[in-house]
Order: sequence, then C-alpha cells, then structure tokens
Amino acid sequence: MSILIKNVLHAEQQTDIYIEKNLIKKISPNITNKADHIIDGTGKAAIPGFYNTHTHAAMTLTRGFSDDLVVQEWLEKKIWPFEAKLSAEDIYWGTKLACLEMIKTGTLFFSDMYWFFNTTAQAVDEMGLRAAISGVLLDLFDEAKMKEQIKQNEQFYSQMEKFSDRLQYVVGPHSIYTVSEKSLKWAKDFAKETGCKLHIHLSETEKEVKDCLEKHGKRPVEYLEEIGFLGPNVILAHALWLDKNEIDIIQSNQVNIAHLPISNMKLSSGVLQYNLLKKSNITLTLGTDGCASNNNLDMIEEMKVASILAKLTTGDPTIFPAEEVFEMATKNGAELFGINSGIIKEGKVADLILINLDHHSMVPLHNLISNLVYSANGNIVDTTICDGKILMKNGIVEDEDLIKSEVRRLLKNIN
Amino acid sequence: MSILIKNVLHAEQQTDIYIEKNLIKKISPNITNKADHIIDGTGKAAIPGFYNTHTHAAMTLTRGFSDDLVVQEWLEKKIWPFEAKLSAEDIYWGTKLACLEMIKTGTLFFSDMYWFFNTTAQAVDEMGLRAAISGVLLDLFDEAKMKEQIKQNEQFYSQMEKFSDRLQYVVGPHSIYTVSEKSLKWAKDFAKETGCKLHIHLSETEKEVKDCLEKHGKRPVEYLEEIGFLGPNVILAHALWLDKNEIDIIQSNQVNIAHLPISNMKLSSGVLQYNLLKKSNITLTLGTDGCASNNNLDMIEEMKVASILAKLTTGDPTIFPAEEVFEMATKNGAELFGINSGIIKEGKVADLILINLDHHSMVPLHNLISNLVYSANGNIVDTTICDGKILMKNGIVEDEDLIKSEVRRLLKNIN
Repeated sequence: MSILIKNVLHAEQQTDIYIEKNLIKKISPNITNKADHIIDGTGKAAIPGFYNTHTHAAMTLTRGFSDDLVVQEWLEKKIWPFEAKLSAEDIYWGTKLACLEMIKTGTLFFSDMYWFFNTTAQAVDEMGLRAAISGVLLDLFDEAKMKEQIKQNEQFYSQMEKFSDRLQYVVGPHSIYTVSEKSLKWAKDFAKETGCKLHIHLSETEKEVKDCLEKHGKRPVEYLEEIGFLGPNVILAHALWLDKNEIDIIQSNQVNIAHLPISNMKLSSGVLQYNLLKKSNITLTLGTDGCASNNNLDMIEEMKVASILAKLTTGDPTIFPAEEVFEMATKNGAELFGINSGIIKEGKVADLILINLDHHSMVPLHNLISNLVYSANGNIVDTTICDGKILMKNGIVEDEDLIKSEVRRLLKNIN
Repeated sequence: MSILIKNVLHAEQQTDIYIEKNLIKKISPNITNKADHIIDGTGKAAIPGFYNTHTHAAMTLTRGFSDDLVVQEWLEKKIWPFEAKLSAEDIYWGTKLACLEMIKTGTLFFSDMYWFFNTTAQAVDEMGLRAAISGVLLDLFDEAKMKEQIKQNEQFYSQMEKFSDRLQYVVGPHSIYTVSEKSLKWAKDFAKETGCKLHIHLSETEKEVKDCLEKHGKRPVEYLEEIGFLGPNVILAHALWLDKNEIDIIQSNQVNIAHLPISNMKLSSGVLQYNLLKKSNITLTLGTDGCASNNNLDMIEEMKVASILAKLTTGDPTIFPAEEVFEMATKNGAELFGINSGIIKEGKVADLILINLDHHSMVPLHNLISNLVYSANGNIVDTTICDGKILMKNGIVEDEDLIKSEVRRLLKNIN
C-alpha cells in the first residue's frame, strides 16, 4: 500500500510526503509518484503522533464512574467492585473504546497494564495501533498466585507471534506493595532473557515510600536496586516521591520514567520533580494513566498540564517549554519502546497524524508547537496513520458507531 | 422568535425545552407549541453554558506569539511591542475571533479588560454574546492620563444605550501597581453612582504584595479596604497571595474572586487558596484569562484544571468535586454579573448550550457532569443559544470563515 499526502505543512514548509508500505519514502514538494491513497494536506500539518507510555486502556469503561474520593475508598468501594464484574467481552470492547479515543486524538502507541492480556492484544491489533502490553504480575505475596502468573506470562510471551509486530510483550509487575520479591526477581530475569521491557508503578504516593521503609528499611528505588531489578529496560510509572540518592540510582541505571501529571493531580498523589530529573538527564516520557483517574486519553491535554504544572511547582515559567514537552510525548516514547518513528523523516516508519490548522484553537498560527501544546486538544486531529495504514481520515474511524454501541450495550448489564 | 428543543437530556431525563423571545417558557416532555426553530436534541444534553469572568478577548491575536518566558521579558519584549502595533480594526477582528472560540466552546458571557472599549463592545454585540466590558484605568500615576481616562470612562458609560442590554459597562482599574489612588477612588465612587461592577487584577504575584507593603505599609487587600474600594460589586482577578486577615476582609466586604488556574500555572504566579476561600464562603467564579497566558478560552478545560489543581495543592482528592466546579463556571458567574441565567429553569433567560453525548469523551455516560468536567473539552458543544438566539447549530457559526480569514490578513501586516 502507498499513500501520498499532498501540500501539507511539515517542518515549517508546504511539502508532499510519500509513504510506501510502512515507511516514509520521500518528503519533498511536488512528488509525482502514483499512490493507492492520495490525501489533500491543504490546511493541515503533519506531526509524529503521540506515544502514551502508561495507561490502562480497558478502564475507559470506568470513565466518570467514580471521582472525587480518597484513593482507598475510590478503589475498594467503587473501582474494584466494578472491575470484578468485567468479562473478557467487556475488556475487548473497553480496549477498543480506548483505541478509538486514541486514534481520534492522535495517539499511535500505548503502554498498557491490565488483566486479559490476549483480549487486549486482539483488540489493539484489530484497531491497527501499536502497544506494549504488560503481562501483569500481582501475586499479593501468595506463592500459588505467583506460580500461576509466571506461567501465564511465559505463555503470553511465547504466543506473541499470533499478533502483528506492532505489539510487544512487556513484563508488568504491578508494584512493590502488591508483588513479592520472588516475582520481581523472576520478572527481571525474564525481561533480560527475552529482551523485553519491565513496567512497574513506583512511588506514586508518599505512603508507598513509608511502607517500603518500614518493610525493607530502604526507599522503593533503593529496594529495586538491591534486588537487581533496575536497568535501561525499566519504566517506572509515576516516580514522584524520590530523594536525591534515588534520583542518582535512576540516573546511573539508565532507568526511564513515565510522567502522568493529570492522574497525579487528580488523585493528589504528588508532583514529579521535573527539574531535578531533567538535570540528571533521565529519560522522561508522557502518559495519561487510565480513565479512572484522568478521565480521558488525550495526550495533547496531557502535554499542556505537564508543562504548566512544572512551571507552577518550580516557580519558573521558562521551564518545560512547548518544544520539550512535545518531544517527550512523541520522540522519547517511540525511542524508549524501540519503535523507529516518533519523528517524521525519510526512512522512518510511517507513524504520523495530520492536524487541522483551520480549527479555532490554531488561529492565529504564530507558532505551531505552541498552539498544539497550549491551545489545542485532541480534537484537532484530522487523519491518523499508523505503520503506513490510515486509521482515521477526515475525523472518521470506520468502527466508531459499532464500538460505542457495544460499550453501551455491555454496560447496561453491569450497572 | 421561538425555539423548541425536542427530546434532549436535561436534569437526568429526556425532555423538551420551549424558548419564547429570550426566556425559557416551558420544560416538559412532549411540548406541542409551534416554534420558529425546532432543534432535535436526540443524543444531546442541555446545560447552562459558561460565564468566563476574566479575560482579555482581543489578545486572542497573541495566541502562541510568546510563551515560556519570565513575565517581565514576556511583557516588555514580546506582548507590549506586539500590542503597540494593534489598530482598532485588529481589535475588532481579534475580539470576534475570541467570541467565535467562546461560541464554539459554549461560553455565553465574558468579563473583559482591554483597550478599545467601543470596538470591543461593537464586536461582542454583533456576535450575540453577553459581556461585561471594562473601561480601563491605567494611569501609571500620571495626573493627565488619569483625567483623560476618567473622561473616557464617563463617555463609555453614557453611551451604553448604543449597545444591546447583553452588554454591561464595568469600571476596570488595571491594578494597584499601575493605577493611582485618586483613580481608584474615582473608580469606586463612579461604580457606586452608576451601580456597575468594579474589576481589578489583584495579588497575582508575590512581588505585587511586597511592592505594596513597601509603598503603603499594607498588603494589597488592606490597602484597597483603607481607601474604601471594597464591596460586593468588586471582582478581584487572581487574588493568589492573601493572608488570613485579607481573606477576612474579602469575606466581610463580600468581595468576589475570579479564579484563573491555567494562567496562574503557566506564568508560575501561584496557587489560589481554594480551601480557605471556600470555608470563608467567598464567591468564586471561573475565568480563562487572555490567550497570551492560557492559550485558549476553553472553560471546560479550565474546569478540569481548577479541580485537579485544588486536589493536588490541598492533598485532598475529595476537594472541589465536579459539581462544584461546574456551578462555579456557570451559576456563580451569571449571578455575580446579575444575569438571570446560569441554570436551566422555566422563567430563566434562555442562555444554554447543547452538548454532544455521542462524542468519544462522553462514552460511557456514567455521570454527565463528571464527563463534562474531567473528560471532555470545548469541542463537545454542538449548539449555542444566548439570550434566546441560536449562535451556533450543529457546530456551525455563520461568520467563522470570514473571522479567521480577516485575522490572518491583518496579522500578515503586523508580523
């Protein structure tokens, strides 16, 4: 398949972009190649699309189900009882609903952590997006659960050839307060053996640090270092409550952090120490977290909040400028997950979106990236192309009505 | 003129809404009145629309022109030189651009502070929105300027009958650091004499408080109290840096505060003491500030940030729930400016919007207000009705293309 995008704004000039199979073959004005699909880029800009590095896709089903509660009550009285009712069919359509939202708002990849690995993978695969799907470990310090979950993870990994190579398996121990040391060590070894990433929630709350100090006599990052868990393949979700020594450990082990500002604010979890982490050259990527704590998957909204939150909490309005947060939401995420995209360039994989420059939020157009980060939201996305395939054109996703009606039908039976 | 909205979601049930002239006459299922306009409300919800209580509409021209700078550099090197080039024609189309964005995102009223009073008023009047337009006082402690600006304000006020009663004149002394005590006292007396509101920036930065202490030996609110400025007709924009005594003064004088969270974050200005102000029963309304520091006028985005910022900074995720921030953005603003709307009820003025429940951000629909505040943004607005007139239907505003092309044409000559 080939796609020719005519007369689109890219790198501050009008140009054509020619895509063959899943690669960007040529970027130049007046390309004359024939193509299966020709897209008129007039009034649009081509940008890389977004890499959402931490979410729980199927939890889009819980959007608006429970808000404004303290975390324990929110989880125990609302979210967990709701989740307990979910079937594989619910997860399938819930994940598709999340994918729909991502396609509509320009996200091409997400790193997911949820139950129902195969169902999730199938839904993402069918929707045409990229994902790093965690095989969850959450043994609650129970040896039998641990064995069962390890077995499941080995299966998930071994069966990945069922799915497109847009999908990658990730080992996903939930957290240090829900996963035994044995499981964590197994996860680390399995990740090493298979070359996959390790994805864990860490230091989201101050309580987690206190509990870790009590239990292990060490702070969370120190504990993970001690058991040999840390390395360049590790992604910590949240990582808010770090002391100086922990930041040094993260730096020296080349560990990565997924920053989730809206969720951190909404749950009153805390503030990422953006300035210190940046000074230490730690790789930061952006994510939305799940819809239970955000309550959307809009990476454009997330970019704005990430930037203005850092400005407020450092007292420095020059911190985290638009270009930097845009890079974090695109290039950094793609690089971390080994995807040869995240920027638009000849030879790169054709992951890109077209945004509508005629939308009121883009007028006037003094500065494209500023408008994108500070003025716009996900609704400016007009066309979404992932791995050389058109997933949305002129705002239309083929299965949108079906997905929404299936979700509505299923939730009637749950509520 | 009459409007009949059929089968719309309102107060958790499907109903019809009948509007005659500028009033909501009847809310009930199966209304059979004939109407000039019939709107199919299927798949939509009727909500009050938003009241943006502090902005600088024409500054929408500066969207993305300058970001990520320290405030002095931002103003002196970027914003002020740009503004110095603006003509009345620029302001006219800049204000229309702001109105366009507000109509598209469901805002029905704004409180504005900018130069070119008559031009602004004309633009708003033509667009069909409501506004409280400040006659600016910014004398920089120069007696001649003061006299000239007082004369202008008297003229602005006396000529208000030129405009629709959707518009109200407000006295707008810019701030205590740009306006002389004489001007402030004149403003207070003129507001008393005419029954209009008094609108001033106050305690946006810590520096402003320090400077005030040096100059007057008092904090800003104490200074304003001393000169008799404060009362129930006063709206303080920002009001971040308040001590306990100032909060007491604000409370006992029934002074109101316009909360502008995104601007406060983006400029690193500080944090509104939401919790203390709420405990003191001080009226809080919401605003976006201008596009130079936000960079949009989307009140739905502003609601989310207001809530999650309060949750983060108080450490309490139950603070500022969705219903409360929604009321602040609607009812509180309407009441403050004496507009008989802000809620949808028989006998109220017909200021309302229809939102699209089929938008991905509204699926699933466990809770309408939660979805509106935490998941959606301004793009879910489908229909905008202000003072009984339809300003947008099915997302279409008549003059949209003209306004955008005029803004683009004019800015070519400025840059």
